[in-house]
Amino acid sequence: VETGKGERGPRVRRVPSGDSVERLVCPECNFINYENPLMVVGAVVTFGDKFLLCKRSIEPRAGFWTIPAGYMELHETPLDGAKREAVEEANAAIEIDALLAIYTIPRISQVQMIYRASLPEPHFSPGPESTDVGLFSWDEIPWQEIAFPTVHWALNHFQEVRGQSAFAPFTNPEGATGTL
Amino acid sequence: VETGKGERGPRVRRVPSGDSVERLVCPECNFINYENPLMVVGAVVTFGDKFLLCKRSIEPRAGFWTIPAGYMELHETPLDGAKREAVEEANAAIEIDALLAIYTIPRISQVQMIYRASLPEPHFSPGPESTDVGLFSWDEIPWQEIAFPTVHWALNHFQEVRGQSAFAPFTNPEGATGTL
Ligand SMILES: [Zn+2]
Ligand SMILES: [Zn+2]
Repeated sequence: VETGKGERGPRVRRVPSGDSVERLVCPECNFINYENPLMVVGAVVTFGDKFLLCKRSIEPRAGFWTIPAGYMELHETPLDGAKREAVEEANAAIEIDALLAIYTIPRISQVQMIYRASLPEPHFSPGPESTDVGLFSWDEIPWQEIAFPTVHWALNHFQEVRGQSAFAPFTNPEGATGTL
Repeated sequence: VETGKGERGPRVRRVPSGDSVERLVCPECNFINYENPLMVVGAVVTFGDKFLLCKRSIEPRAGFWTIPAGYMELHETPLDGAKREAVEEANAAIEIDALLAIYTIPRISQVQMIYRASLPEPHFSPGPESTDVGLFSWDEIPWQEIAFPTVHWALNHFQEVRGQSAFAPFTNPEGATGTL
């Protein structure tokens, strides 16, 4: 079975001997590519009562607004990853205070760990993946131009626990799968 | 640079063009193997005041006791993964009630999501990765034969929030890296 996922490397889907699940195997060198869920780390960042949002310069959803978030790298903690993403996307040195939510998007096997964070000083600017970064009051948030469902969820979940210190992290809203 | 991680497939470490980080590349077919943190899902499972533990039949740490836990699979939620692992390792149908902890082991880029769960009925038996499964009161837990540091942490963190319903999930104990 050719999968069409490229013309080189692991691209044939079959069950390797001793395994029970189909994997992508390279027909030239027999390398097996074990695919695993991917972790995204990010944060709802506030300065006073305003929210830090970044306008995406890259696909998917270029031109739409998001919270700072991205793929967790090797050898970092989720907390360090969320801080790194805020630096990369908004040149923002954030302070994380709680885990706000863990969302799952099963279709693309993505797990998002979203923290609650604040900006000690209003210093920020667009990183390479953003064309603009701004602080928005709740009523100023460009709700029609939000990049992903999980950003909607995270902003609303933030409001639900504003001022609370001990709470269980949120998960997907009932029945929501996170796909656009 | 040969990495010695096998004699076929992606095994040469270099920075692909357009990238900024070293990746493992296959010298035969140029396939790039993007490595990502791995997610482990599991649960501290109780029946009454006893804890469900599994004696590992496989390496690493064969013969030592663990809570049901394993790698999250594609297209499942962390909750579903934790339930699946309890079935696979202990033939146990668990009910999950809260996220107990998120541990990180940066050296091996592993993130563990450990839930708090209960067993509605005392039905369980060893799965293929266990030689034994049992219920242990706190004082009966074989503390000297626990497989991994994270199992110690999870059992102790469970005790700290016994009876509490809204709490922030624990993380690694101060300074602990999770390596044996
Ligand atoms: Zn190959
Ligand atoms: Zn190859």
